[in-house]
Amino acid sequence: MQKLLHRGQESAGIVTSDGESSQTFKVHKGMGLINHVFNADSLKKLYPSNLGIGHTRYSTSGISELQNCQPFVVETLHGKIAVAHNGELTNAIRLRRKLMRHGVGLSTSSDSELITQLLAFTPPLENDDTADWVARIKNLMKETPTSYSLLIMHKDIIYAVRDPYGNRPLCIGRLIPVGDMNGKGKDNTETEGWVVSSESCSFLSIGAEYYREVLPGEIVKISRHDVQTLDVVQTSEADPSAFCIFEYVYFARPDSIFEGQMVYSVRRRCGQQLAIEAPVEADLVSTVPESATPAALGYAQKCGLPYVEVLCKNRYVGRTFIQPNMRLRQLGVAKKFGVLSDNFKGKRVVIIDDSIVRGNTISPIIKLLRESGAKEVHIRVASPPIRFPCYMGINIPTKEELIANRPEFYDLANYIGADSVVYLSVEGLVSSVQESIKERQKNNPTAQKSPGKIGHCTACLTGNYPVELEW
Amino acid sequence: MQKLLHRGQESAGIVTSDGESSQTFKVHKGMGLINHVFNADSLKKLYPSNLGIGHTRYSTSGISELQNCQPFVVETLHGKIAVAHNGELTNAIRLRRKLMRHGVGLSTSSDSELITQLLAFTPPLENDDTADWVARIKNLMKETPTSYSLLIMHKDIIYAVRDPYGNRPLCIGRLIPVGDMNGKGKDNTETEGWVVSSESCSFLSIGAEYYREVLPGEIVKISRHDVQTLDVVQTSEADPSAFCIFEYVYFARPDSIFEGQMVYSVRRRCGQQLAIEAPVEADLVSTVPESATPAALGYAQKCGLPYVEVLCKNRYVGRTFIQPNMRLRQLGVAKKFGVLSDNFKGKRVVIIDDSIVRGNTISPIIKLLRESGAKEVHIRVASPPIRFPCYMGINIPTKEELIANRPEFYDLANYIGADSVVYLSVEGLVSSVQESIKERQKNNPTAQKSPGKIGHCTACLTGNYPVELEW
Amino acid sequence: MQKLLHRGQESAGIVTSDGESSQTFKVHKGMGLINHVFNADSLKKLYPSNLGIGHTRYSTSGISELQNCQPFVVETLHGKIAVAHNGELTNAIRLRRKLMRHGVGLSTSSDSELITQLLAFTPPLENDDTADWVARIKNLMKETPTSYSLLIMHKDIIYAVRDPYGNRPLCIGRLIPVGDMNGKGKDNTETEGWVVSSESCSFLSIGAEYYREVLPGEIVKISRHDVQTLDVVQTSEADPSAFCIFEYVYFARPDSIFEGQMVYSVRRRCGQQLAIEAPVEADLVSTVPESATPAALGYAQKCGLPYVEVLCKNRYVGRTFIQPNMRLRQLGVAKKFGVLSDNFKGKRVVIIDDSIVRGNTISPIIKLLRESGAKEVHIRVASPPIRFPCYMGINIPTKEELIANRPEFYDLANYIGADSVVYLSVEGLVSSVQESIKERQKNNPTAQKSPGKIGHCTACLTGNYPVELEW
Amino acid sequence: MQKLLHRGQESAGIVTSDGESSQTFKVHKGMGLINHVFNADSLKKLYPSNLGIGHTRYSTSGISELQNCQPFVVETLHGKIAVAHNGELTNAIRLRRKLMRHGVGLSTSSDSELITQLLAFTPPLENDDTADWVARIKNLMKETPTSYSLLIMHKDIIYAVRDPYGNRPLCIGRLIPVGDMNGKGKDNTETEGWVVSSESCSFLSIGAEYYREVLPGEIVKISRHDVQTLDVVQTSEADPSAFCIFEYVYFARPDSIFEGQMVYSVRRRCGQQLAIEAPVEADLVSTVPESATPAALGYAQKCGLPYVEVLCKNRYVGRTFIQPNMRLRQLGVAKKFGVLSDNFKGKRVVIIDDSIVRGNTISPIIKLLRESGAKEVHIRVASPPIRFPCYMGINIPTKEELIANRPEFYDLANYIGADSVVYLSVEGLVSSVQESIKERQKNNPTAQKSPGKIGHCTACLTGNYPVELEW
Repeated sequence: MQKLLHRGQESAGIVTSDGESSQTFKVHKGMGLINHVFNADSLKKLYPSNLGIGHTRYSTSGISELQNCQPFVVETLHGKIAVAHNGELTNAIRLRRKLMRHGVGLSTSSDSELITQLLAFTPPLENDDTADWVARIKNLMKETPTSYSLLIMHKDIIYAVRDPYGNRPLCIGRLIPVGDMNGKGKDNTETEGWVVSSESCSFLSIGAEYYREVLPGEIVKISRHDVQTLDVVQTSEADPSAFCIFEYVYFARPDSIFEGQMVYSVRRRCGQQLAIEAPVEADLVSTVPESATPAALGYAQKCGLPYVEVLCKNRYVGRTFIQPNMRLRQLGVAKKFGVLSDNFKGKRVVIIDDSIVRGNTISPIIKLLRESGAKEVHIRVASPPIRFPCYMGINIPTKEELIANRPEFYDLANYIGADSVVYLSVEGLVSSVQESIKERQKNNPTAQKSPGKIGHCTACLTGNYPVELEW
Repeated sequence: MQKLLHRGQESAGIVTSDGESSQTFKVHKGMGLINHVFNADSLKKLYPSNLGIGHTRYSTSGISELQNCQPFVVETLHGKIAVAHNGELTNAIRLRRKLMRHGVGLSTSSDSELITQLLAFTPPLENDDTADWVARIKNLMKETPTSYSLLIMHKDIIYAVRDPYGNRPLCIGRLIPVGDMNGKGKDNTETEGWVVSSESCSFLSIGAEYYREVLPGEIVKISRHDVQTLDVVQTSEADPSAFCIFEYVYFARPDSIFEGQMVYSVRRRCGQQLAIEAPVEADLVSTVPESATPAALGYAQKCGLPYVEVLCKNRYVGRTFIQPNMRLRQLGVAKKFGVLSDNFKGKRVVIIDDSIVRGNTISPIIKLLRESGAKEVHIRVASPPIRFPCYMGINIPTKEELIANRPEFYDLANYIGADSVVYLSVEGLVSSVQESIKERQKNNPTAQKSPGKIGHCTACLTGNYPVELEW
Repeated sequence: MQKLLHRGQESAGIVTSDGESSQTFKVHKGMGLINHVFNADSLKKLYPSNLGIGHTRYSTSGISELQNCQPFVVETLHGKIAVAHNGELTNAIRLRRKLMRHGVGLSTSSDSELITQLLAFTPPLENDDTADWVARIKNLMKETPTSYSLLIMHKDIIYAVRDPYGNRPLCIGRLIPVGDMNGKGKDNTETEGWVVSSESCSFLSIGAEYYREVLPGEIVKISRHDVQTLDVVQTSEADPSAFCIFEYVYFARPDSIFEGQMVYSVRRRCGQQLAIEAPVEADLVSTVPESATPAALGYAQKCGLPYVEVLCKNRYVGRTFIQPNMRLRQLGVAKKFGVLSDNFKGKRVVIIDDSIVRGNTISPIIKLLRESGAKEVHIRVASPPIRFPCYMGINIPTKEELIANRPEFYDLANYIGADSVVYLSVEGLVSSVQESIKERQKNNPTAQKSPGKIGHCTACLTGNYPVELEW
Repeated sequence: MQKLLHRGQESAGIVTSDGESSQTFKVHKGMGLINHVFNADSLKKLYPSNLGIGHTRYSTSGISELQNCQPFVVETLHGKIAVAHNGELTNAIRLRRKLMRHGVGLSTSSDSELITQLLAFTPPLENDDTADWVARIKNLMKETPTSYSLLIMHKDIIYAVRDPYGNRPLCIGRLIPVGDMNGKGKDNTETEGWVVSSESCSFLSIGAEYYREVLPGEIVKISRHDVQTLDVVQTSEADPSAFCIFEYVYFARPDSIFEGQMVYSVRRRCGQQLAIEAPVEADLVSTVPESATPAALGYAQKCGLPYVEVLCKNRYVGRTFIQPNMRLRQLGVAKKFGVLSDNFKGKRVVIIDDSIVRGNTISPIIKLLRESGAKEVHIRVASPPIRFPCYMGINIPTKEELIANRPEFYDLANYIGADSVVYLSVEGLVSSVQESIKERQKNNPTAQKSPGKIGHCTACLTGNYPVELEW
């Protein structure tokens, strides 16, 4: 969970089960970072246990929001279930009304409670003597198309589920026995257990290795020694899958693997593509550390320009107590970065950034570089401009805040003080993402094929949402 | 709420409403004492608002129990309701099953969630275009007989409800306009607003005065300027009411008023009754400060013996870090009390205690008094022995822990080291409680008559539960 | 130390020694109450050790004041010493200047640092091959007459010192072997160790018994098994001793023993004396709980009026967040107390208070009692009015704040809203304090006689300071 | 101060002066990081003020060490002084004894208290009517040769002092008026004020620019609008200066300027020099992020090999609660880093590290790279092995812990699992540091010349201490 903190830092929770009783889970949740929520005592509370699910969440505010903290646990007629959810339901409002009309009082505003109550509620109930969880999950998928990646724990089973569009990531890792990680591949049949995670970057530090993705629409049953596909639900109209392209651009960790490729590699390819689309005569290429570094190295290599560091990150960035005057605001960015002026004095600098959302970070950086001696400053952005809101789980500023929707966008270089500024094209991004997936499919048409057609959600860039939005 | 902390100190919460929207409440809840949970910032979050309900709760453990923290808020088809509950449902298990069978997932183990979901769920739902909250509350009262005192907030109304047996207390106070509290009685028609509380002791410090009790089975609707009885639901078989006698003996604050009498007065009458039932030849009467003081003063006055202080309380009692050796355990009580030995050296002392539950507090006190020079130590307990568990909201030790169920009880004086020990009789307690109620009814047969017959729950003393217990 | 918290609650510290090295002490200090400063971990840091000194301090503000937190530890040419000090030096300013002129930089504004540096500094230093601590202590006593009670720890010895005027209290207790506290007197030669404390109330809870006072001017050397008087320094002009009378009136715990008498007994005698000096026709006598209760019982008994409770203390008094309006301020006191109105409705009440300092606490209490039905309210104060500042260790409001120095004092009953108000006379207080000391001296002229004449500091009441004040 | 946190994170303090009274400073100090110690409230306490000094300290343990927290404030005969000290006195033990013999009790074990008391104590005192602070500072420099950089505040003056050997850094910055930072050089006579700092990296974010270093032995007087050299004290025997070379290698921030050169440039030169001294046939050069990156880029460029990222840092590294089994310990480093395996699978990798102190960090990194597919792993260390303790202010592990003093050092590649490992030579390091200084001196012999000869302290690498060590 520590390796997933970039996905959510405002609350954290773990629910464990001893795998025997359907009545007792051990739960610990709290607001704040994992290290704040969990300590030796709270972890002790979670033992003994054989399985468990955890969650780190990005929420909006305050202590009273603890009730929204995941995983959710409810008692049903067939025992307790615990649910961890990543995503956002596109038809949440209709579903809320439906449940309340049935007489269910809803305690939170969270979509995750909806999912939990839908699983509890699924009819037929009166004669439901056995709890057919797969039927309940499939019913859930019929009720709501996207977006959700789910872990559902009941007794000694964890169900891993990805929505039919595959909008949110989910992958499986294998815990390897101690002392047996030297070069032995996936043929090694011995495993110590299974882990499921939004991102594969979390496997290494717990001694697990990447096994495979959960496919769009797939319901996977995970028991102690077994991983078993129970069903793969297709999108209603055989639409292409719609994995969030923003995960590649910004959200995921560079060492995570999606669709068979490392995020870092995609980002470097974006940099290379950007060099093709928007070359510039300059003396050196650099980055705004650290997220844009792969693209910057790709750009530099493609252009044949040297890669040079111009900023160094300050490890300890603190609060600002005093209302800053104009000068201090101007130099606000100087709290976050040190300037390595000797590296670029008198030079023409290309800065690669991963995205420009509001435009108020890059502007003072350019000013800083100029004041420290840069002769020219050209900005190249390794992703297309963001123009539309996301309703499937990513927090994007309002349309009005997005620089790409503001009048300043038409003279952006001038507005941010750059000599030039160019974004990557949507086509360039999509091809940087899909190129190696397609190549792999061509070479090995049977390997882990997504049931639907290859596709990516580019809604925040293009406004093309994969499903109709309901209000 | 600060004046109700003796009723629950492990969590606290407040929900407020601006009285306009049925969709928005302001909520702040947390584990710990009120002063820990609330500060200037969290209180600010609760404004602006015109009405609100709060709760302080005694729960069993840990941070993760925050979900049990009251008031409960749920969204229903007709908007949000917030519910604060004091009590414990005697048929909770059957009700849980009923709700789950209907497809409601239950998030907590608390009876208060049951009540909330029962209010949300009450049929007929499909055609329920207007939210008939009174019908829903009456349906709740049909589903479960006891014990609950409830505050239910919806939009600009608070419903105050007491179960048909009146097992838990609930009373109404009137906020008096500033500068107008001098001797003007209930005729004064001007009010600033209304408050409802488990105990009247909480009124004084917020500038309110005692108005009246909510009657057993009564549904009171409270709006800004009006208090209105909507209905009074009788116990199914016209049983007598069953107000908890333990509130008088131990639980409530001495300055609270129940059934028209001050708790302090009842306790003093218990002391007087005890003097009649169990006199002793001695030099002085004293108390274990502070709760037994009214009984001690009553006993002393009835016997004609001087009332003298033998112990003084230490304001600052801290934790004990070091595993105490035998001596320190023996003197453990000396951390809590100072001994005023000059007051009783060479004298025969009668100590009045309010109750002996486990017997391990009084024993070291007696030892301490003897070592400090008391010639004789006689114990008189101003309540009967507790022998049975409570299922209606009071936390009582298990049967095995109760001294009255242990073999040592047969030679109790010897066990605790006293020269003699006598408890008040059940009849003595009941008459101390009921005497002045009956007298008042005789004198003024119309005044605030309970709809059922006068009665008190003495289950923890006698095993006679007012309703059949369901499992 | 927990039993001494009434003497200082803003910081706490403990220094321990293993008794072997003169170079190492174990120290833990911090701001706040003992339970905040010390926990299992910090206590563990103080072990292993054979002896130690602790201190709880009343300081004025903030975290940065930790440097003033006692005990003070300094390294001298002869090893480390640790010093705990109760009191305030009357010639501090001259001493500061003297030390600084010698080249010592002073880190704090506290008198206790002065004492520590004076002990380090005392000449002759160049040839001071052996550390003659007694000579250094006697030199300290020559430099400054009052007020200080000191514990000085060096290696395996603790020196207990009281200034020649005996202004601040200090007494010795004996740790009794486990299982041996039944009636065996001071002849019992076996001891487990010695403890020294400002007040004897702290002995009981650690299994110690009162042994004797440190005399004014006495230097006592305490080693593991031995308590030895090294010297008794007399006041320069054989003045009478000047023990602080305010300790009896207000500051000390009622179960503490000073000069052979229990503080509780003195306070009761003050109440009796007050009944003689200022009787009143009334129905009942009561108290502002809890400190005035001994005086109230004494007054009631002497008058032959019943003692009745009119207020009950609220255990949980919290902060007030909202700026109180006039009404709430009026009723502010109602947060602290509940009113037992049934006990005094229609009656004439005498309230005994221990002191009236500023007059703004008693006033709303009187109002509250009247509004709750008291027919008359008479105030009797069991001490004389405070009129003068203390420069010897007691925090007393400024002259301007003291009600006795304000014009309202001339019509005090009217100002506070009482039917009458009378203070105890200075002579009445002094005789209540000294009566039993003198009687004991008469009966047993050799028993623990103070070297000087019996006397008490009444400066805050009379302006007669025992020494000339230096500025 | 936030930009100096890499120099000390365990306590922080600020003392400010209004520049008028010699008696009052405003002080706030505390244990922990700046953001923990300071908040809006504590900063408000420091105002109003015109000047101030601050300190962040690396200390060894616990809350009770708050007394060691700097700046130190003492009151002297001539008013209060506040002192902030970076360094460690080589003759501290003799100085302690000298002060204690004079009768000064020392409260801490810190050298900074010694400096403060030496400034307070300096004779002649009896006739010292004017406080000649320069004479006192010069006397201090006579008493102790190194190491200290000091800020001494008195009333409206701050003295900035560097020891004669210039062992610790200290430099001056100029606050530039708002809106005036574009290209105007040092001729610009307008300034808003002056700042002094251990490292120039701290200037940018507060709107200041680098002005110059304080020279070895220089006493600079800083008032509101003026910076004035009062004296430059030479080393006793005209030794060369001895600035700590470890500041370049590891301790300082890359964007700081010492002796006219940016630390980043020195580190890159070390990488280039290392490429000359220890080339290797490989496919790519990489770094252990982030401190070794400049050297890695220098090495890659000199060798003509591509610079590639192999590890990415995890922003959120938490505690490990559970006792790790062998596997988890092996993979401990995987919590801190993600592995970018696609970037180096099947390749021969050169890893540049900035130093290998104990050898237990690099070892699991190598293992991780091999397990993730690296064909060969060569380690090149951009500094010489550390073999000796530092007595001048740098915390270096004990001799026994240093890998260079252990038997494993003789087969280090094997011990850490590398294909080869080579350190930079001492000569290579010294020339990387001094080369550009000497060049600059040649080109401009008058510019900011150090009074002594150019030299650097390499004691931790060579055992050649610049002064004789006293015990």
